[in-house]
Amino acid sequence: MAKYEFRMQRLFVEAALAPDAEIAADKTQANYLLNVLRLAEGDEVLLFNGRDGEWRARLKLPSRKSVLLCPHEQTRPQPSSDGLVYLFAPLKHARLDYMVQKAVEMGAARLVPVITAHTQATRVNTERMTANVIEAAEQCGILGLAAIEEPRSLAAVLADWTAREGERRIIFCDESDEGANPLQLLSALRDEGGATVPPAVLIGPEGGFSAAERAQLKSLPFVSAIPLGPRILRADTAAVAALAIVQSVIGDW
Amino acid sequence: MAKYEFRMQRLFVEAALAPDAEIAADKTQANYLLNVLRLAEGDEVLLFNGRDGEWRARLKLPSRKSVLLCPHEQTRPQPSSDGLVYLFAPLKHARLDYMVQKAVEMGAARLVPVITAHTQATRVNTERMTANVIEAAEQCGILGLAAIEEPRSLAAVLADWTAREGERRIIFCDESDEGANPLQLLSALRDEGGATVPPAVLIGPEGGFSAAERAQLKSLPFVSAIPLGPRILRADTAAVAALAIVQSVIGDW
Repeated sequence: MAKYEFRMQRLFVEAALAPDAEIAADKTQANYLLNVLRLAEGDEVLLFNGRDGEWRARLKLPSRKSVLLCPHEQTRPQPSSDGLVYLFAPLKHARLDYMVQKAVEMGAARLVPVITAHTQATRVNTERMTANVIEAAEQCGILGLAAIEEPRSLAAVLADWTAREGERRIIFCDESDEGANPLQLLSALRDEGGATVPPAVLIGPEGGFSAAERAQLKSLPFVSAIPLGPRILRADTAAVAALAIVQSVIGDW
Repeated sequence: MAKYEFRMQRLFVEAALAPDAEIAADKTQANYLLNVLRLAEGDEVLLFNGRDGEWRARLKLPSRKSVLLCPHEQTRPQPSSDGLVYLFAPLKHARLDYMVQKAVEMGAARLVPVITAHTQATRVNTERMTANVIEAAEQCGILGLAAIEEPRSLAAVLADWTAREGERRIIFCDESDEGANPLQLLSALRDEGGATVPPAVLIGPEGGFSAAERAQLKSLPFVSAIPLGPRILRADTAAVAALAIVQSVIGDW
């Protein structure tokens, strides 16, 4: 929470960030900067666009309602965009918003909605997901914007996994498994060299995976199953818990 | 999610659970059982009261609006009530509800609100917290109800910690620390025998701990600081992430 200059407002913009840029804030941003934060000419904010790192920018106010953002100093370089992939059965509405925000906070670099046998939400609003990615990135000091893929069936994702993802493994969070400790399984995977590419973490829907899905997942050579403790976790809790464990063993913690 | 008989409704009741009991469902429960779930005489639910384990119970319907719950078989014994203690700066309203539910899902046995220098919510509705504990326990198959303490200042909690808590350590989630890996720190603690009593996990408010609070925490012999990765986490995310890591190294995962 106190990691960066967290009291300075951080804004996402589409435009390129460079010392000579003058970027017009959009209407919502201008209203927020002027009427909520009550910033004035010369005040500073932090800008990021998902490509050019983070920049300090000064406000110019050419008129009463318009704001120009003028980057003058890069505060952090753009990090590598390689990171965890988050495969998840979409939830409905507010809980999906929440889950997307949490996945971004936990460092997911790519979000892949997968439709499983027990998935209840089959239509996914990827625009709304993008808005949630941006909001979480603004609030949590994240410079890389998680990419969002169109939803596909679990069967389709698994069918061309190696062709698309190469060496990337899927860490399958198996809620029916009360067995071994997830840390030991992940450490073994790391020590065997199975985590040189950041893995994908797969979280099922509220009703769990079907028996057929579990059997298929467990039979695939690029899938490793881990348990998530003795209690039932809701899907959004499981997401944070699994990402924390994976980041701490084979990720960037 | 598929750990227990999760499709059978699980209800919290105050009454003792024993084979000869006939427990009147309260108005909300009766309405839910009859009008939402549309259960009938002889249908079954699972009951728990935080003391007597989990029981299968049959419905008796002596009148159109009243429901008697008749336990006839214990399905799980009452687990030990010893477990993680969760010390947290309370958040406001909906986010506090959420945080309480998540802490219960992650296996916290006791919830202790602590007021810190940057805590924004200083009044805590412990009745509402209790309702959230029950809701999470019903949904997630948890039989022990987390105890809720009245809020106290961080200074007061630390001042009499050893007198009240004996050997229990505080795992202080230090958001300003970007250093070592939390798993190594927790594993070292476990291997040194510092985790024979389940620890307390301390999560700060949105604004983080003050410099004075951090200095005090780091100076105390019963406190171990751990970092939570390179990104800023919101307090409720930090809660789930920290509890997952602690449970997986020195808890019940």
